[in-house]
Amino acid sequence: MPHIESWIPVPAGSDFTIYNLPYGAFTHEGRARLGVAIGERILDLYAAGDAGLLEGFCDRALVMAPSLNPLLAAGPTVWKALRLRLAALLRGDDRGDAALRERNTGAFLVDQATASMVVPMEIGDYVDFYSSLEHATNLGKLFRPNSEPLLPNWRHMPIAYHGRSSTVVIDGTPIVRPNGQRKPAAADAPVFGPSQRLDIELEVGFVTGPGNRFGEPISIAKTREHIFGLVLVNDWSARDIQAWEYQPLGPFLGKSFATTISPWIVTLDALEPFRASGPKQEPEPLHYLRASDRGAYDISLAVDLSTAKMRAAGTPPLTIARTNFKELYWSMSQQLAHVTVNGTQIRPGDLYASGTISSSGAEAQGSLIELTQNATQPIHLPDGEVRGFLQDGDEVTLRGWCLQGDFRIGFGAARGVIAPARP
Amino acid sequence: MPHIESWIPVPAGSDFTIYNLPYGAFTHEGRARLGVAIGERILDLYAAGDAGLLEGFCDRALVMAPSLNPLLAAGPTVWKALRLRLAALLRGDDRGDAALRERNTGAFLVDQATASMVVPMEIGDYVDFYSSLEHATNLGKLFRPNSEPLLPNWRHMPIAYHGRSSTVVIDGTPIVRPNGQRKPAAADAPVFGPSQRLDIELEVGFVTGPGNRFGEPISIAKTREHIFGLVLVNDWSARDIQAWEYQPLGPFLGKSFATTISPWIVTLDALEPFRASGPKQEPEPLHYLRASDRGAYDISLAVDLSTAKMRAAGTPPLTIARTNFKELYWSMSQQLAHVTVNGTQIRPGDLYASGTISSSGAEAQGSLIELTQNATQPIHLPDGEVRGFLQDGDEVTLRGWCLQGDFRIGFGAARGVIAPARP
Repeated sequence: MPHIESWIPVPAGSDFTIYNLPYGAFTHEGRARLGVAIGERILDLYAAGDAGLLEGFCDRALVMAPSLNPLLAAGPTVWKALRLRLAALLRGDDRGDAALRERNTGAFLVDQATASMVVPMEIGDYVDFYSSLEHATNLGKLFRPNSEPLLPNWRHMPIAYHGRSSTVVIDGTPIVRPNGQRKPAAADAPVFGPSQRLDIELEVGFVTGPGNRFGEPISIAKTREHIFGLVLVNDWSARDIQAWEYQPLGPFLGKSFATTISPWIVTLDALEPFRASGPKQEPEPLHYLRASDRGAYDISLAVDLSTAKMRAAGTPPLTIARTNFKELYWSMSQQLAHVTVNGTQIRPGDLYASGTISSSGAEAQGSLIELTQNATQPIHLPDGEVRGFLQDGDEVTLRGWCLQGDFRIGFGAARGVIAPARP
Repeated sequence: MPHIESWIPVPAGSDFTIYNLPYGAFTHEGRARLGVAIGERILDLYAAGDAGLLEGFCDRALVMAPSLNPLLAAGPTVWKALRLRLAALLRGDDRGDAALRERNTGAFLVDQATASMVVPMEIGDYVDFYSSLEHATNLGKLFRPNSEPLLPNWRHMPIAYHGRSSTVVIDGTPIVRPNGQRKPAAADAPVFGPSQRLDIELEVGFVTGPGNRFGEPISIAKTREHIFGLVLVNDWSARDIQAWEYQPLGPFLGKSFATTISPWIVTLDALEPFRASGPKQEPEPLHYLRASDRGAYDISLAVDLSTAKMRAAGTPPLTIARTNFKELYWSMSQQLAHVTVNGTQIRPGDLYASGTISSSGAEAQGSLIELTQNATQPIHLPDGEVRGFLQDGDEVTLRGWCLQGDFRIGFGAARGVIAPARP
């Protein structure tokens, strides 16, 4: 990897090196604009497009739109051309194009610290998979203690369900503790009230590019042409609501109240150097799920927790979980091939989340229900507090990054603080 | 009910009397336009708005949009004003307004027979309930023969799952038999291929009007202000794919390949004379699901089946099922109060389907798996053919109507013919 630097300062350890160039959206005078993160700044794509800086590389309408959907629909050839142009404008060496630097750069650059980020795409369908072998096994043991933890279908297909697209929210949105029905084990009937078992799920999701035609599957070899990039996903889960409602049609209100995504979509092009081999699959999947190339990505993931008390005392957050996206049993390509094998149509801007990413080992589980064994082994925080599930005021931060030597790209954060339930 | 007639001819038995005035969308020079059905014609709302015929009653932008979403967002006061204006323009007596009749009516009226209808709203989230006691009991017996058919949660809440919004298609769209995984009972591993157990589900769905704020539930007393109207829904189901995939996260590819809706949204205002009491609920639901007024609607429903052979021979379709929407255990108001009780946001244009509507009695089940007891008691067709599940070339038509004496409104049809699976 040649060492390239941007003329825009990029602090050491930043997720947003010139190798990354992830896409997001921020509000400008009450309207959404697209941007690309670089160091601690955002390159305003609306302004760049309007000033003609992308002319000949990308139709300006694609970057001046209020959401990514038109660019998502444009496909990989356009994405690659735009990426090369942005890299040329932002790199500081003699292979760069100084067209941007020679302007009043204040008109094109926004500080991330003061920007108000919004969900950058209109999400058509949101699907949540269940693709971690360790997570599915762990949850099976907890939810169905008297049966085989992994159901017979699990190793044959990437199990999934449709989630709620209206409540996908951006990093930093407060999460109001949901009210709902739960049934205490000893009770005859359910009770209504705030969830007592509010949890997280550490996931990574992919955002789709061009859709397929209704009725026409996407073969596994073509799936990457339909994937634009990835975000961190926190699939907040009310375990008590979920446990009572989920049979026989799956999770509903236990999940639908909120799903947090990180503000920057890291593109598949940026992630290409981090392709990896996933776990061996046994038995071998059916033909439509067989891929000839490496389908995993080496993305380090972490979950940080801080309580209101910790923040008031200046105590730094505690990292409670560390795992890696490459541990997933089912790859994104397998997931997308499966979704469309029955002819289902995908559209630009769909979100497909991985399911909780757990692996083996201590503190390598992506949910509190696993980390604390359903609150029977609570987490001990540095200030003496303990947590089984989340309390009001707790803040959870998901982080994700890729590292090879000093070559780093990352996702930023997906944060949420728990607000009290509505009375 | 006073007898009112339109100056536009309405044949006897028509679903589209002046009492109805349902909304749909049709293509005009390659673009979608909104319209209202009357007799065998469509009043072109784009043309009517453009000509100023609705001025003072409804912002013309709402009816000149290419989808119903802006009108859906506008809310009940606007809906009622527009309904009164349309009735005045279309009624033929001296209480009507002759403004439309005095123009070149050819510019405002389109023949339904030649119109190409499209899904009239952009659907955000699509939810499918499971609100028929008889259906849930029947399916429990078939899918879980060794346990109590009705799960313990069923009488406490309207069980539901999120479905696929990208594959909601309009009346008449061919339904390609889906490929997928199924596991024969005697086999060790699943096989891949066309579904062998393709089924229908007879449902009614409601389309939402204005959304709520993220985090703020809609109380059951306010739910009707957020419901615009109803459509027929055929939730096509591949029973073999569904049976193998549905545990533990619910139906996915067994349902996602297609869902057919009828082209006309019959408004809650038009349905008001057909309000009815639903079944007694035992035990009494939790407080947030308790309504003080009648939540059911008396809508007669039927399923017609014709095979390719029957159509070739000119044999009329056979009505294989008859039931009524008022039989549903959980009302639409209860469904919407439940969906939002955890703070979930609804948006204008969401679709909430009832789940299969079955009742007791012969031929009163809304799916083939129930009507034929999982194909063990196949339906005998008039030409000697038999059907357990659907064969290629079979055409299914859902119909729905309300009748009081000679006062009739209806939904038209939701049809689909089965096309062979892709090779």
